[in-house]
Amino acid sequence: MVVNKGIRLLSTKAARFVPSGGVYPKGFVVGGIHCGVKKDGKSPDLAVLHNTFGQDANAAAVFTKNKFKAAPVQVSAATIKQKNGVGINSIIVNSGNANAVTGQKGMEDARAMAMVTDSVFGDHKDSTLVMSTGVIGNKLPIDNILSGIPKLESQVGDSHDHWLACANAICTTDTFPKLVSKSFEINGNTYTMAGVAKGAGMICPNMATLLGFFVTDAPVSAKALQQILSYATDRSFNSISVDGDMSTNDTIVAIANGAAGGDLIDNNSSCAESYFELQKEVTSFAQKLAQLVVRDGEGATKFITLKVKDALSYKDAKSIASSIANSSLFKTAMFGKDANWGRILCAIGYSDVSTAQSIIPDRTSVTFVPTDGSEPLPLLVDGEPESVDEARAAQILELEDLEIEIDLGTGGGQEAKFWTCDLSHEYVTINGDYRS
Amino acid sequence: MVVNKGIRLLSTKAARFVPSGGVYPKGFVVGGIHCGVKKDGKSPDLAVLHNTFGQDANAAAVFTKNKFKAAPVQVSAATIKQKNGVGINSIIVNSGNANAVTGQKGMEDARAMAMVTDSVFGDHKDSTLVMSTGVIGNKLPIDNILSGIPKLESQVGDSHDHWLACANAICTTDTFPKLVSKSFEINGNTYTMAGVAKGAGMICPNMATLLGFFVTDAPVSAKALQQILSYATDRSFNSISVDGDMSTNDTIVAIANGAAGGDLIDNNSSCAESYFELQKEVTSFAQKLAQLVVRDGEGATKFITLKVKDALSYKDAKSIASSIANSSLFKTAMFGKDANWGRILCAIGYSDVSTAQSIIPDRTSVTFVPTDGSEPLPLLVDGEPESVDEARAAQILELEDLEIEIDLGTGGGQEAKFWTCDLSHEYVTINGDYRS
Repeated sequence: MVVNKGIRLLSTKAARFVPSGGVYPKGFVVGGIHCGVKKDGKSPDLAVLHNTFGQDANAAAVFTKNKFKAAPVQVSAATIKQKNGVGINSIIVNSGNANAVTGQKGMEDARAMAMVTDSVFGDHKDSTLVMSTGVIGNKLPIDNILSGIPKLESQVGDSHDHWLACANAICTTDTFPKLVSKSFEINGNTYTMAGVAKGAGMICPNMATLLGFFVTDAPVSAKALQQILSYATDRSFNSISVDGDMSTNDTIVAIANGAAGGDLIDNNSSCAESYFELQKEVTSFAQKLAQLVVRDGEGATKFITLKVKDALSYKDAKSIASSIANSSLFKTAMFGKDANWGRILCAIGYSDVSTAQSIIPDRTSVTFVPTDGSEPLPLLVDGEPESVDEARAAQILELEDLEIEIDLGTGGGQEAKFWTCDLSHEYVTINGDYRS
Repeated sequence: MVVNKGIRLLSTKAARFVPSGGVYPKGFVVGGIHCGVKKDGKSPDLAVLHNTFGQDANAAAVFTKNKFKAAPVQVSAATIKQKNGVGINSIIVNSGNANAVTGQKGMEDARAMAMVTDSVFGDHKDSTLVMSTGVIGNKLPIDNILSGIPKLESQVGDSHDHWLACANAICTTDTFPKLVSKSFEINGNTYTMAGVAKGAGMICPNMATLLGFFVTDAPVSAKALQQILSYATDRSFNSISVDGDMSTNDTIVAIANGAAGGDLIDNNSSCAESYFELQKEVTSFAQKLAQLVVRDGEGATKFITLKVKDALSYKDAKSIASSIANSSLFKTAMFGKDANWGRILCAIGYSDVSTAQSIIPDRTSVTFVPTDGSEPLPLLVDGEPESVDEARAAQILELEDLEIEIDLGTGGGQEAKFWTCDLSHEYVTINGDYRS
């Protein structure tokens, strides 16, 4: 069964994750259209976000660490740096072509996208960030994109449908658009936050690309926003694993325009309380967006939350969670509904932790925490295997959402969460067979 | 079609990799029998190697770095350390049970296996190393093993069939026994080397375990042997990837008894020439054994050699090769016969290299080197994508053996080789579905 949600036909499963309404921040317009990058002549492939509030917005960004950085990543990183994050009012995104490994022409094209956006939206120079996702190694159909920007400008707005159109226009092989919004209070002021992401859909002949951006009408200094975004990205987009690869184009951007008023949230001691409240709000928001990317992992049949408790440090906890999340053996076991604590233990054991005391074999415990609220099932307690009730394990593993808790028992008390999916036949089919 | 080779029925494909004869070093006997670890009542599950030369042999070992070390790993590491590698005359191995995560009883069982072997072969205390592979979390059927050792002792020998029996008895889900032997000359003396390995077969409910041991009748000091084994293991067993996991039991051992005479090969300047000759011989030998493990990777349909050239350091070259070899996206592309340079580039870009100059995007080249000796096919030259002849690429990718050359163009001149296999539907089936 398919249902019509927004402008794409979605499976019932995917439709569960697309909201039918939302709350959207003041002073931002968004939109998405087809401009002629995607070859089918109709799929949306150009998205924009623009700050319409009378004052310059502040922006922060986190870019891929891949040594082969796509042109839009290089151009946007230079803009953010040059402006110190101040006066960034637009984001322009094309899907269908990554503008990666495209040489000098690629750099010129990325700069042209930013300049035309500045000009069409009547903004000052260097106020636009650029993102691209899609096939790598091909030049952009830049004329289609540049002539698409004025058309897109004539269709922007701030309704739920506009946001959904924007979310759709950054998709490649994603099976559903990823859109999240929420309201929150800081110091008695109500603020709103909304954002979109695209997931780890593989794109011929290419790799996973992760794009995400979200905006708020809270007043936040560029410096505070960058610190908060880095913290939140560590715990969200950098705490998910679909296949462990890191693309040439990965980019996460946050913009704050202050349109909802209130005192400026900065990174100094006088506003520490509001800073940490905002950090909490941004982190949980980014986690929601990132989780949608995992939900849409190619061929995924399971959504898995890994919680590593009582580590010596957050870094250790995250490294251990990441090691499990990236283990092909663990991921195929979850696909096979196999309560295989051996593979979890093995992945813990070879994770890259900082000290010899970070993992203590006879204090390590592994537990399945059923997401239906029923009784947890311990698999390993203080390094000793439990005799597992296989029928009960099978029951838990039938659930779509799985949670596994690893208690390191180091006394350090630090913890990390990580989200991943299983490794299925469908994954191999999508990524191996798609040319045949 | 199946053919009878040794005592197992092998597919025609697997039989290609099992030798029908060999040259075996002087002063060693080996054997393999069923003693009652494996539940089918007949598969060989106990192997031994023993030095029969009148003098004590020297040994070296490399163990898993996994924090959860199985009991036999802990016991063998302690023995090697205590003896400084001198006077190690036997190896006893059981398959079918890994004796891992088995607590104090597991340690006692591993020690008992060594002690009984010492005694049955009339040797002094602590002259035996122990290995186990199989299911983890279960206690060993230690009585069956201990009573099996004298039976095994009565059947050892130095013929090809004895070596094949030994190779078979360490297998778990391996589809063929892995046995290599060769002769070589150093300083006008002819020496012989033979060894066995078991591969990355997954074992319910468990992970890949890599075991290997090889022996020579050359006279080598324990110190030199350890240095040479570490060097060779880096470039062989630690330069292969089937699924990137590292088990609780991985162990590689080398033993030299000097039975073929000649001057002692030591790690001092007076015998530098023979040291480096032996290092070369051991490295190429270990590579042959390690490559058999890749050939037998679960569900593998391709054998892939990655050669990274002109790196700033060996470490950089190996890290880049390892990053490609462990990329699920790259491995599924090879299964799908897809000349996907984008995924190779991506994996190069996120590899863990030591300096900012280690990877220079516009000097990086990627080439398919056909293993049938035909013309190489460049995919990327100095960071620029080539327009690839898809028909030619398809032709190359039809071959079972693939070679990909990455030229980093740093001017550093260092290189590394790495071997891996593809990621197939069969892999997911074996590791996901096997309980259903």
